[in-house]
Amino acid sequence: MSTNVQNSFMLFGDSITQGGWETEMNGFGAKLAHVYARKLDVINRGLSGYNTEWGIPVFEQCFATQEQQKHLPTVRLLLIWFGANDSCIAPSPQYVPLVKFASNLKHLISLVQSPRSFYYSPKTRIILATPPPVNTYQRGADLAGRNPPIQLDREFENTKMYADTVKDIAHEEEVAVVDIWTKLYEAAGREERSLSAFLTDGLHLNGAGYKLMYEAVLETIGTAYPELHPDRLEMVFPPWGLVDRNNVVASVQARDAEVVSV
Amino acid sequence: MSTNVQNSFMLFGDSITQGGWETEMNGFGAKLAHVYARKLDVINRGLSGYNTEWGIPVFEQCFATQEQQKHLPTVRLLLIWFGANDSCIAPSPQYVPLVKFASNLKHLISLVQSPRSFYYSPKTRIILATPPPVNTYQRGADLAGRNPPIQLDREFENTKMYADTVKDIAHEEEVAVVDIWTKLYEAAGREERSLSAFLTDGLHLNGAGYKLMYEAVLETIGTAYPELHPDRLEMVFPPWGLVDRNNVVASVQARDAEVVSV
Repeated sequence: MSTNVQNSFMLFGDSITQGGWETEMNGFGAKLAHVYARKLDVINRGLSGYNTEWGIPVFEQCFATQEQQKHLPTVRLLLIWFGANDSCIAPSPQYVPLVKFASNLKHLISLVQSPRSFYYSPKTRIILATPPPVNTYQRGADLAGRNPPIQLDREFENTKMYADTVKDIAHEEEVAVVDIWTKLYEAAGREERSLSAFLTDGLHLNGAGYKLMYEAVLETIGTAYPELHPDRLEMVFPPWGLVDRNNVVASVQARDAEVVSV
Repeated sequence: MSTNVQNSFMLFGDSITQGGWETEMNGFGAKLAHVYARKLDVINRGLSGYNTEWGIPVFEQCFATQEQQKHLPTVRLLLIWFGANDSCIAPSPQYVPLVKFASNLKHLISLVQSPRSFYYSPKTRIILATPPPVNTYQRGADLAGRNPPIQLDREFENTKMYADTVKDIAHEEEVAVVDIWTKLYEAAGREERSLSAFLTDGLHLNGAGYKLMYEAVLETIGTAYPELHPDRLEMVFPPWGLVDRNNVVASVQARDAEVVSV
């Protein structure tokens, strides 16, 4: 089958996750897949336009139940990255109230971590990510230029509240967090307009933005779950220099990527 | 689990496959993963340095048996891309004689296509790819510059014979083929030295080379297996505009990517 033998790193989120394999944008998903090659499969479960409310029933279909897990490789790392759409301004159909956004994130975590959950997966390490800051100048200009023009649908301070909520929940639930909101805002000198250096349209990341996200994800893994950092993992199938030509089959047996040889 | 719900496109080969997610190199694997997002998971099963002889026992571990397939998503597309190492010059440890290379490729195909095989997977569509042409001027200079210097390990005409063999086998076995050997050689004006425009070191593809490979793979799929071209597939989970806010769960049910709506 597909990811037989090799465990995985699932990236679950919205369009900013879905677009993370675009090579022209230096996509963080593609870059993670590259450094985790032969160690963990990096799986794209990004859903353009989705919020947490719509993401939950998708998650319940694409994350294995306890019964299914018996036959499948393990999701060792799970990045949950929502908030960019939840934080739309009502009456946008994508809007999810802040309190509901918070409870949805907690529910996603409990689906994986609660022993009573159908999806209980005690070996899965969760990372939350904050939504990126919105550049309303850039976003407003982009939407105004459409035909017909669209009104500004997100606000800088509002998205910040959703980002703060993600951090609060990570703290409460004791899971790791990638605070890309702060990383990007600080990289922009704490100037909303300067965020255009990291965003294509005021909302989505460009190559420079994805580069920061890629680095931030690896930094968080190195701190929170160092045993799963790519530098700490072995290749599941051994490097070719270790293949024994007199005993090929035995020498290419799959290994546990997490058993670091001495 | 990892690729629950969504079927996959497995890229099985050597370092040129393994390196195919490098964004700086415009990696063909990352680009395929991008266009197949929400349709097929594109899985990296590239093994740097491996030849077909060592690849077969790996394949037997990472492709699902018939029994395992009952619990797993289906590998709908399988790219088999070897030859760059098999075509090393004896006594290189990577060298596989041409006749053995040919029988190994046939064996890989039969593992998937023979109803008597443990790995029989009638829904998997196979694509072979030819090794890229070697630029021995570039490769020779690269190896001579190492410490200690290494003798030239591949020959232009020899690799061409391996490429021709891949085409012959694809024809005999009636599977699709991506003839990247010819595409690259023609793009270089049929001048070995000019291949440096497409190779980093005389052997591995650079951004321009991967771009040609990416286009060639999609072209072959469009011709041989058009029902699996990304433009013909639906997203497994519907686009957000189709989410019914009054009936979210029902409206985000996974769909068969291959059932094209009218």
